[in-house]
Amino acid sequence: MKAVRLHGYDQMPVVEDVPVPKVSGPLDVVVRIGGAGVCRTDLHVIEGQWQQAMSPSLPYTLGHENAGWVEEVGSAVTNVAVGDTVILHPTPTCGLCRACRAGDDMHCTQSSFPGLDSDGGMAEYLLTSARACVRLDPGTRPEDVAALADAGITAYHAVRKAIPLLHPGTTAVVVGAGGLGHIGIQCLLATTATGVVVVDPNAAALELATELGAHHTVQAGDSAVDAVKELTDGEGAEVVLDFVAEKGAENSSFAMTRPGGSDFVIGYGGTLNIPTLDVISTERNIIGNIVGTYNELAELMVLAQRGLVTLHTRTYPLDAAPDALRDLEAGKIRGRAILVP
Amino acid sequence: MKAVRLHGYDQMPVVEDVPVPKVSGPLDVVVRIGGAGVCRTDLHVIEGQWQQAMSPSLPYTLGHENAGWVEEVGSAVTNVAVGDTVILHPTPTCGLCRACRAGDDMHCTQSSFPGLDSDGGMAEYLLTSARACVRLDPGTRPEDVAALADAGITAYHAVRKAIPLLHPGTTAVVVGAGGLGHIGIQCLLATTATGVVVVDPNAAALELATELGAHHTVQAGDSAVDAVKELTDGEGAEVVLDFVAEKGAENSSFAMTRPGGSDFVIGYGGTLNIPTLDVISTERNIIGNIVGTYNELAELMVLAQRGLVTLHTRTYPLDAAPDALRDLEAGKIRGRAILVP
Amino acid sequence: MKAVRLHGYDQMPVVEDVPVPKVSGPLDVVVRIGGAGVCRTDLHVIEGQWQQAMSPSLPYTLGHENAGWVEEVGSAVTNVAVGDTVILHPTPTCGLCRACRAGDDMHCTQSSFPGLDSDGGMAEYLLTSARACVRLDPGTRPEDVAALADAGITAYHAVRKAIPLLHPGTTAVVVGAGGLGHIGIQCLLATTATGVVVVDPNAAALELATELGAHHTVQAGDSAVDAVKELTDGEGAEVVLDFVAEKGAENSSFAMTRPGGSDFVIGYGGTLNIPTLDVISTERNIIGNIVGTYNELAELMVLAQRGLVTLHTRTYPLDAAPDALRDLEAGKIRGRAILVP
Amino acid sequence: MKAVRLHGYDQMPVVEDVPVPKVSGPLDVVVRIGGAGVCRTDLHVIEGQWQQAMSPSLPYTLGHENAGWVEEVGSAVTNVAVGDTVILHPTPTCGLCRACRAGDDMHCTQSSFPGLDSDGGMAEYLLTSARACVRLDPGTRPEDVAALADAGITAYHAVRKAIPLLHPGTTAVVVGAGGLGHIGIQCLLATTATGVVVVDPNAAALELATELGAHHTVQAGDSAVDAVKELTDGEGAEVVLDFVAEKGAENSSFAMTRPGGSDFVIGYGGTLNIPTLDVISTERNIIGNIVGTYNELAELMVLAQRGLVTLHTRTYPLDAAPDALRDLEAGKIRGRAILVP
Repeated sequence: MKAVRLHGYDQMPVVEDVPVPKVSGPLDVVVRIGGAGVCRTDLHVIEGQWQQAMSPSLPYTLGHENAGWVEEVGSAVTNVAVGDTVILHPTPTCGLCRACRAGDDMHCTQSSFPGLDSDGGMAEYLLTSARACVRLDPGTRPEDVAALADAGITAYHAVRKAIPLLHPGTTAVVVGAGGLGHIGIQCLLATTATGVVVVDPNAAALELATELGAHHTVQAGDSAVDAVKELTDGEGAEVVLDFVAEKGAENSSFAMTRPGGSDFVIGYGGTLNIPTLDVISTERNIIGNIVGTYNELAELMVLAQRGLVTLHTRTYPLDAAPDALRDLEAGKIRGRAILVP
Repeated sequence: MKAVRLHGYDQMPVVEDVPVPKVSGPLDVVVRIGGAGVCRTDLHVIEGQWQQAMSPSLPYTLGHENAGWVEEVGSAVTNVAVGDTVILHPTPTCGLCRACRAGDDMHCTQSSFPGLDSDGGMAEYLLTSARACVRLDPGTRPEDVAALADAGITAYHAVRKAIPLLHPGTTAVVVGAGGLGHIGIQCLLATTATGVVVVDPNAAALELATELGAHHTVQAGDSAVDAVKELTDGEGAEVVLDFVAEKGAENSSFAMTRPGGSDFVIGYGGTLNIPTLDVISTERNIIGNIVGTYNELAELMVLAQRGLVTLHTRTYPLDAAPDALRDLEAGKIRGRAILVP
Repeated sequence: MKAVRLHGYDQMPVVEDVPVPKVSGPLDVVVRIGGAGVCRTDLHVIEGQWQQAMSPSLPYTLGHENAGWVEEVGSAVTNVAVGDTVILHPTPTCGLCRACRAGDDMHCTQSSFPGLDSDGGMAEYLLTSARACVRLDPGTRPEDVAALADAGITAYHAVRKAIPLLHPGTTAVVVGAGGLGHIGIQCLLATTATGVVVVDPNAAALELATELGAHHTVQAGDSAVDAVKELTDGEGAEVVLDFVAEKGAENSSFAMTRPGGSDFVIGYGGTLNIPTLDVISTERNIIGNIVGTYNELAELMVLAQRGLVTLHTRTYPLDAAPDALRDLEAGKIRGRAILVP
Repeated sequence: MKAVRLHGYDQMPVVEDVPVPKVSGPLDVVVRIGGAGVCRTDLHVIEGQWQQAMSPSLPYTLGHENAGWVEEVGSAVTNVAVGDTVILHPTPTCGLCRACRAGDDMHCTQSSFPGLDSDGGMAEYLLTSARACVRLDPGTRPEDVAALADAGITAYHAVRKAIPLLHPGTTAVVVGAGGLGHIGIQCLLATTATGVVVVDPNAAALELATELGAHHTVQAGDSAVDAVKELTDGEGAEVVLDFVAEKGAENSSFAMTRPGGSDFVIGYGGTLNIPTLDVISTERNIIGNIVGTYNELAELMVLAQRGLVTLHTRTYPLDAAPDALRDLEAGKIRGRAILVP
């Protein structure tokens, strides 16, 4: 089968032939891919940012945002059957460690992360496990929902954690209205009555934000912190969701929070540089976020089915993966790029 | 009356005569000071660290950790009477803003902070307000409890926020077993069944920690992060309470947290320098903390009355305030220094 | 001035002349009433249901749901001025007890409840306190918002407590779509993405519910529990908001919850009759609710200003108070009746 | 093997020979029983109270509180091995439903409840599943810990839910200091600084409560509600843990709560009879509780290993099960009866 494989850091992955994966363990599931999202994390993987944390053996197949149809199941799989349409939680988990037993899939001590530490879904088939499969209505087109598997769940997870802070009268700032951010905006509007301010350097992204219902937009740049303060009685926002967290956004996002506020870090690449006096004198928080839980992915599918979250995507054939990666790098994607094998 | 007054930054305050404060507003209360704590924040005030945030007019009287007896009350004061023994919440609040109406005294939009932005309690008398007064059993000696008014409430506030994270089987690391930390250890032991690890450079402080019931102690220094990991199955702690947050502790404290863990910043002076990748890849949090609520001070007094929190203090006459500040700076105080006018 | 006064239980209140109230304490506020809501609780007061809990001295003025303009203020009032448009939190509080210091206005140990235990707002003027006043945009017509002061805050308070239980994919059942319920529906839709099912015996009420956006309606009656179960995969709802809680609704509402579900009791008059085996075998909860906090009233005003909560009201002149009470009793009010002096 | 089997309701179970259970599914585990607790629920099962909810086929083996050694494992079991000492979560769960994925083992839609709906552990061997096994230190004697598998987890679960309500200065009332209650007292003391009041009709039980550290004891009976109010400034307790919930305790427990308080129902058999006016006028809650989560059982084992929870037990040989049941019925057991095969 064809797969998009990384042979070395700082070089473009190549589309090449590899064997189709097969079920070996009792809980294994092989999925025929219908859509595989292209994510800024793929760019970061190529740059080597995840090398130390994940230490994958090169070459391997990228793609951590996948949906498709069940092709083959192991002997002990009971929750899905061959032919089922599924979206895949990005990290197949063990189900037995304390984190799994508490529903914190992200902190499973035995999980893998296909596309980051092992072969991912930018391919015709993907090997995953029963616990990663969320069954969908058979009429769903995988390419239409794939972006929810990682961009979606990650945005929703952060928003869901912020909900208790977002009573009417508060403000949530969304920094970055791209693949994740444009979903985050919709999740905020669907699940709270907070005021939503969107910050992005890109006029088209801000326009999309407004179409989606954002209450205010702010051009990213030197005056963005001041602009957010002006929109919030000079105080800043209760919640900032920083989907960028690099190139200075990581520190300006913190500066956009009000006393007692929380800066949710979701993007990455930059380095926080914050005096502890600023953290304590106003009692502000910096909250880490990674992917989300299986149940959160299921909840997000409910929002999508009810039309409360819609994706802005652009599809590419699998062979065009390098084009998609280049377009993302160049800021040419409004929403999310999806590879369709 | 005598008062300990700061005339310029980076110079020792002087003990000099000033007029006794008088009640003018209907909710004013004048307290005769029985004990005024000496805090690392006083050193930071002298160094000018709070100049920008608080902009006090010099000269003014230091002292934000006070207890004593009510001397005079305004016409609308109903909760205390002349002669009552009281401990004082450090920030008199308005009672009417959203934060006050939610019990978040620290975020009152109209509060003052005597000793930081106006005349404090290192003096014979202090002007405060009805809302700051917690009435005590008449037999209580103010000098015995004064340290709870700031060191205590601050430590307790952070511990109380951490309680939901500290189920049996978890570990809480206390970084710094001084004035705040030695209270934090006791609050953790009184209100949770977590395992308590204490990190400090000072052997006497670690000895005190052990006497107070800490389960493990670790010598501060280059190997402290590794030592904490060894005590926690290689993972790190669910909660780190960083009572130092300067001179590198601010970053090593974060490094002591496990995936999903939280670093509570309580001390200050240093600068966080943390890649956002480290925040998100393991979904860790940095939690700001400042003082605590009025109700928390009242709760802490319950712990003290029941003997679950005891203070290690060393008293100095008011005139010896410079000696107390120098001893604190030199690391010679085990627990807390208290001025007794 | 004219006032609607209760002279004896089980008899209609009379409209009669009484002296205008005057400011005496430093925090007193006199409000000229612009709108006073008529509530099922007024019927219950007349029936004597509150006699034991509140023990008011008869005769006294009814009316616990009020908005108007500030007429006179005490010497220590700083948060409102003569002429301000205000909506009034129903229970003036002390601001000093533990409950007030935690933001739990409903549990203030010193509060009064005008209209239940002292003279209320079905009159030309009402005596209240500074802490009860929420300042509004000067253009607001008090008669348009008065119903938010009790019906609104009570519905919003219960919904706000339920929010953490109402993730996407859940169901909330609103039992009773009258004065409170029609606001509760809107609060649910504004602040969550839960599915909303409304149960009421009245076809017009169900029609209003549908107009407001409810996802399903169910005719109250013997088959209502089964109908709710059919809408919820046979399991029942995560949350039931029982705005009736009398005449059997109190027990059928509990029966509508699923395992692990919560029955929020908001109405009253009936008696729960539930085997403890039913409570524990499925781990279900019964949650009491009363009024709401000052901050919740302020949050609700934000929802109203943004058009997310609109009131269905019918105005009556003050003299027609007995007609309004009779219409409410007869089930003729769609939404809320408002007296306009 | 020998097993204690129920042949009909309202008659004593008999000890008889049955075949040893065998592993059939890939996740099955057979455990050699080292200790099986005797619980008031066994009496209720015999009385037929659970017949409708659980509909077991008679005859079947009782016993839902078990510990022992792994005897045989299915092909897909990875978390335990033959010979391991284990304590068993009472409800083997599916691991795949929403409740399991959220850590709410009690609400698994596919779980069984051996001893209630299928063969339990009052026998030489028990068939359970991998997900029910908590591995213990090999030196642990199963008979010493078995009571934690149901009495313990149930008490701990309720206490853990109550912790956020139990800050210093509050009161928790434990109604019933028997098998569950004597563990609940210890869990409260280990994980909070609340004041603990214990109510029981039995002088020996109250004496045990005092030995365990309860701050006050109250003789159950007509004056118990008044006695609790006297100990709580006339207001009642923030939390009541009702381990009895029959014979009137279910209603007097509610009456012991203060305004805003919560009545945790854990025992069962009686019927709540509470006017909704009493629920809403003071905003009180009734909280259902059933067993607990796998992680909670693991946390409780930590408390036990640290000596913070110790069990008072009395052992009987398996053949003497009828004696143990009769002694429990007669109120002759201080703590818990344990059958040792």
